[in-house]
Amino acid sequence: MKLQPHPDRLFPADPTTRDIARKLHDSIKDEPIISPHGHVPPEWLANDEPFKDPTSLLITPDHYVNRMLHNHGVDLALLGVGQKDFSEEESRKAFKLLFKHWWLYRGTPVKYWMENELYDYFDIRVRPSAETADQIYDQIAERLQEPEFRPRALYKRFPLSFIATTDDPVDDLRHHKKIKEDPDFDGEVRPTFRPDKYLEPAREDWPQLMEALANASGVDTTTWAGFNEAMENRRAYFKENGAISTDHSHADPGTARLSDAEAERIYKEALAGKVSKEDADALRRSMMYEQVRMASEDGLTMTLHPAVYRNHHRPTFERFGADVGCDIPTKTEFTENLQPALSDFGTSENLHLIPFTMDETVYSRELAPLAGFYPSVFIGVPWWFIDAPEAMARFRGAVTETAGFTRTSGFIDDTRAFLSIPARHDVARRIDSGYVAKLVAEHRLEMDEAEEVIKELVVGNPIRAFKLEGILGEQEGVIGK
Amino acid sequence: MKLQPHPDRLFPADPTTRDIARKLHDSIKDEPIISPHGHVPPEWLANDEPFKDPTSLLITPDHYVNRMLHNHGVDLALLGVGQKDFSEEESRKAFKLLFKHWWLYRGTPVKYWMENELYDYFDIRVRPSAETADQIYDQIAERLQEPEFRPRALYKRFPLSFIATTDDPVDDLRHHKKIKEDPDFDGEVRPTFRPDKYLEPAREDWPQLMEALANASGVDTTTWAGFNEAMENRRAYFKENGAISTDHSHADPGTARLSDAEAERIYKEALAGKVSKEDADALRRSMMYEQVRMASEDGLTMTLHPAVYRNHHRPTFERFGADVGCDIPTKTEFTENLQPALSDFGTSENLHLIPFTMDETVYSRELAPLAGFYPSVFIGVPWWFIDAPEAMARFRGAVTETAGFTRTSGFIDDTRAFLSIPARHDVARRIDSGYVAKLVAEHRLEMDEAEEVIKELVVGNPIRAFKLEGILGEQEGVIGK
Amino acid sequence: MKLQPHPDRLFPADPTTRDIARKLHDSIKDEPIISPHGHVPPEWLANDEPFKDPTSLLITPDHYVNRMLHNHGVDLALLGVGQKDFSEEESRKAFKLLFKHWWLYRGTPVKYWMENELYDYFDIRVRPSAETADQIYDQIAERLQEPEFRPRALYKRFPLSFIATTDDPVDDLRHHKKIKEDPDFDGEVRPTFRPDKYLEPAREDWPQLMEALANASGVDTTTWAGFNEAMENRRAYFKENGAISTDHSHADPGTARLSDAEAERIYKEALAGKVSKEDADALRRSMMYEQVRMASEDGLTMTLHPAVYRNHHRPTFERFGADVGCDIPTKTEFTENLQPALSDFGTSENLHLIPFTMDETVYSRELAPLAGFYPSVFIGVPWWFIDAPEAMARFRGAVTETAGFTRTSGFIDDTRAFLSIPARHDVARRIDSGYVAKLVAEHRLEMDEAEEVIKELVVGNPIRAFKLEGILGEQEGVIGK
Repeated sequence: MKLQPHPDRLFPADPTTRDIARKLHDSIKDEPIISPHGHVPPEWLANDEPFKDPTSLLITPDHYVNRMLHNHGVDLALLGVGQKDFSEEESRKAFKLLFKHWWLYRGTPVKYWMENELYDYFDIRVRPSAETADQIYDQIAERLQEPEFRPRALYKRFPLSFIATTDDPVDDLRHHKKIKEDPDFDGEVRPTFRPDKYLEPAREDWPQLMEALANASGVDTTTWAGFNEAMENRRAYFKENGAISTDHSHADPGTARLSDAEAERIYKEALAGKVSKEDADALRRSMMYEQVRMASEDGLTMTLHPAVYRNHHRPTFERFGADVGCDIPTKTEFTENLQPALSDFGTSENLHLIPFTMDETVYSRELAPLAGFYPSVFIGVPWWFIDAPEAMARFRGAVTETAGFTRTSGFIDDTRAFLSIPARHDVARRIDSGYVAKLVAEHRLEMDEAEEVIKELVVGNPIRAFKLEGILGEQEGVIGK
Repeated sequence: MKLQPHPDRLFPADPTTRDIARKLHDSIKDEPIISPHGHVPPEWLANDEPFKDPTSLLITPDHYVNRMLHNHGVDLALLGVGQKDFSEEESRKAFKLLFKHWWLYRGTPVKYWMENELYDYFDIRVRPSAETADQIYDQIAERLQEPEFRPRALYKRFPLSFIATTDDPVDDLRHHKKIKEDPDFDGEVRPTFRPDKYLEPAREDWPQLMEALANASGVDTTTWAGFNEAMENRRAYFKENGAISTDHSHADPGTARLSDAEAERIYKEALAGKVSKEDADALRRSMMYEQVRMASEDGLTMTLHPAVYRNHHRPTFERFGADVGCDIPTKTEFTENLQPALSDFGTSENLHLIPFTMDETVYSRELAPLAGFYPSVFIGVPWWFIDAPEAMARFRGAVTETAGFTRTSGFIDDTRAFLSIPARHDVARRIDSGYVAKLVAEHRLEMDEAEEVIKELVVGNPIRAFKLEGILGEQEGVIGK
Repeated sequence: MKLQPHPDRLFPADPTTRDIARKLHDSIKDEPIISPHGHVPPEWLANDEPFKDPTSLLITPDHYVNRMLHNHGVDLALLGVGQKDFSEEESRKAFKLLFKHWWLYRGTPVKYWMENELYDYFDIRVRPSAETADQIYDQIAERLQEPEFRPRALYKRFPLSFIATTDDPVDDLRHHKKIKEDPDFDGEVRPTFRPDKYLEPAREDWPQLMEALANASGVDTTTWAGFNEAMENRRAYFKENGAISTDHSHADPGTARLSDAEAERIYKEALAGKVSKEDADALRRSMMYEQVRMASEDGLTMTLHPAVYRNHHRPTFERFGADVGCDIPTKTEFTENLQPALSDFGTSENLHLIPFTMDETVYSRELAPLAGFYPSVFIGVPWWFIDAPEAMARFRGAVTETAGFTRTSGFIDDTRAFLSIPARHDVARRIDSGYVAKLVAEHRLEMDEAEEVIKELVVGNPIRAFKLEGILGEQEGVIGK
């Protein structure tokens, strides 16, 4: 069977709407990709080494891919998860396992992304199946040896114009420095400050984390004031090294300021390893309040994505560790949780705060009203589980009528699956084109207005939300502030 | 650029469905507007004075308009908010600010409403922009001096057949009396009893409110029994003066009856200014239970719209006061909250209770099942933030399959933007026409059934839910009970 | 007016999509019906007696039908609810009441189901109305006397290939035995183990239920260990008698294991009739944990459908008893509630657990991610209030992108309205055909892939989720594991 992605894929079926969608998509489909948040390891671009093999590139590290096989009873170990020495034979078997079960992925974006990668980057022209798995494996393996499949070449080929990684606050950012200092590569690869575990005083290893933070910052972290100073110090270090944002994920997005005395009391108890859950949560919310305050001062954009039950299946976590597909979302709430920080900093010129969520109920109820009022709040577009065509269309339907088009974040791929980045962004561009086309077809927008809107969604919004004007320069056709 | 609202605007793009939608809309588009709940000041219709200027009519009091400029960094003061002496020059500048940023409103209903107002009422034929702002301002300012732009002339021109205002329980309703006694105006302008603040015993000014209530009613309000008698007294006064409904908004829609002794204890503590939050909430829920009981006796329709975080941004509240766009919705719950009152009064012939919400999750889960069983419950259609095309379509999709078409409230504009009333109702008529047309196109309804349904939605439902049979008389083509 | 269900009913209006939908529906429309969960009384099929009259068959026992009349003010008693001696005249009057109010059902699935039953099974060719009610009543009454309208003949005619009933754990399953032993009927009629009330230690009659359980199982139920042994005993009895699943509905889907000592303490207090609500809830969650454990051992599929406020209107319950239409859904949560049981048994080969819900918010947020990871979790399709066209389409839109098509349960009619079973399943087949057709029209699936998908949805999924391979045998075209 032939693999042949259709040029009109993902556009609405109604012919009038589809024609408009195609025109809108044509007008932005060649825009370079802005990727302001993701998980590509910076060493890939720093060292620019070839990728090893098809399985370790496309299957093992991608929990989207693994999860659908696991729910069908396939052992994650067979896909290379947690395997130090995974032989070429095992790698090839894993590949076959995936394509033997390719029918399971129907209706999911994984099928879409993968088939587009195979078609566009590896010139595969047969459909994935048990029968074609070996042929496809070989073709990919061969290509991965070519220079044009090295990370930097791919950065230029997609093309990316900006990509951010996700980094630990005590990281020395050596890979980013290497990239920046390398005269042979002018890509924009920036770190992101991700302090989650330092803001969880109930963790067992938290006292050790505070020591590491002290070492990295040179600031004494045995007091609440010292902790905040150390945080400011590391944020400044990240900013000096190119960071444009900080990223945060906790059980809830609570912000609430404790008195200094109360914060100090809990902080000391946490350092001594005897903090209660309630106190630890209160201190974490106060720490988040301080992060918002710091952001209103240093201007780093904040992304928030709370409410996930991490490592839901303990045996899987114990066997394979974190991030292998058993993090499950829970409901969340923003109106009350963000109120203390927004009331104090919500109109600060420097603050940009972008909540992401998998609880779609908050889009029309809370996030669109918040972003519709506060100049600091931008609504994060669907990501993770809901980084998918219909969820994206629901998102636009839920937020646009209250907050318009300009208050959303721009697409976030949030991925370590480097080769899937162009396909992921293209899905968003196609779905947004379809959504805007519907407004034109229903005479809610004129065509010239729609052309400006789609440009904002693809180029203007991420620049605005992540403050990329200085990095990416003047962009033709973007309305901006 | 020409401003030219399309005759097929807001209809579905599919040609078959659109043709049916157009026919359905044609059959009801000239029905007079029934507006059973809103915020137009009664003195406008009592005094019938000309509107002052374009900005104070169309911008300053409309938080839908202001909010989208505020989120883009425009100071509310520049739009006249909280400004006592706003000069003609400032007013003109505000107008220019709005139209300079008109692109921000794309995809929001504000753009739709405003462009329709400009086209239909002020004969504007150019698109709003920084360039055309002055010309549009002048044209509106000129028109506002004409007699046909006085409130009563507009009432006849829209045409309205009924409009309700929102009033304080101690209001003497003088404006309503004046209108009623004026032989030159036969419009139906009715008050609405809105007792919210009298039902919040934790408010600082609550003891003073109880005094005001005593003064207005002539009833001693120093006891729980007295409070309820005073409420009944004022409800009766409103009913005598034409009221058809009462309106309620609290943090939750709880109803739960306290024992008389417990209610009395808390009531006394609240009068003394030392009530706890828990007790105040319990007393408020008992007060709401009593309001349901009173409604089951005097027959005033109750509208409820709980769960809003008022004045979310304190500095804005402190600078400009309430109702300037920073009230943010929160989640809510009706099944358990309404159970005590519905179990006791839910099948009472006199009770009509209409919950409105911005928490769309309750539509299919709670409100449609409640209205599907209780003869007293009608589902409030989308309003406030979700008074918009796609939210309206989602609403029909969420409630119709469980509760049918007859259990919804009819459209509520809830606005003080007098000139936007026809455009707002027309959006609802168009979206409902499109929804019903889809059922015909999918062979779920026959065309003659659909014609009856759309008539019910526009005329029958508001008459049924708000008991307007006696006021509006027999309506041709409405099925009724 | 002619009654004439359109062959393209419920398909999307867009012509391209409709053509594809029709082709997909054609390919599966004649598949025998698999009904793995419902409420048809087993004695109907055991005794195979004729149905009595149109009203007691189509109206009185069907709360979908009654509810819509009740909300319009019709007394349930007039429909036969709770009436021991309902005369032929009263029965005829009830029928007329229903069709006089037939317009109320527009937009609801009841109208769709009933009109299809009338057309397909009773050859009615006039639309239901007050005028045609008598004629329709007579025609149905006449038909009900014919042999082809006996339950077993209908089973063959629909045709059903499997149907499950819902039964009490202490039931001796005599009707099921009779059916199984009857050489003249080869239909598959299986019991379902529904232990709800035995898992509610706060019920007043719970000590008596424990006695009944002891009597049925022959196991001493005066200890926590004895209770579990008795449960295992009755599950085994049901399994021996053909059961394939157990069914569970409580206020929440909580699972949490108490220590044996703590469970024993609460169990003893409950037996003595003095358990607190908190303790009773904790014990019930521990009982549910044990049910999951048992299912992981005996392999009975578990269906869960929590979060309903039963008998919301007390006077109706007191007058007519349970299940007459005033059970109202509430919000629910699965991620945290199921975690203890899933962490321990979620990858057990024997466990199949299917959560159903009327809280649509959990579909994309919780259930799709859970089913996307755990091989034991299948997502229950919309049922009860949301067993309706648009809710079904929303469901596919909410879960498919995360969990694919294979992780859903297959359609569940959950009904005692025997004659509505074919129409109900056909709605699901049409809506699923339309959904899959949309993916083809939008070039997200190829046509050959879509044909396999629709076959899985109708045949493969219920077989997989309810483990019917052994009963229904090899199915042509089903991909399976």
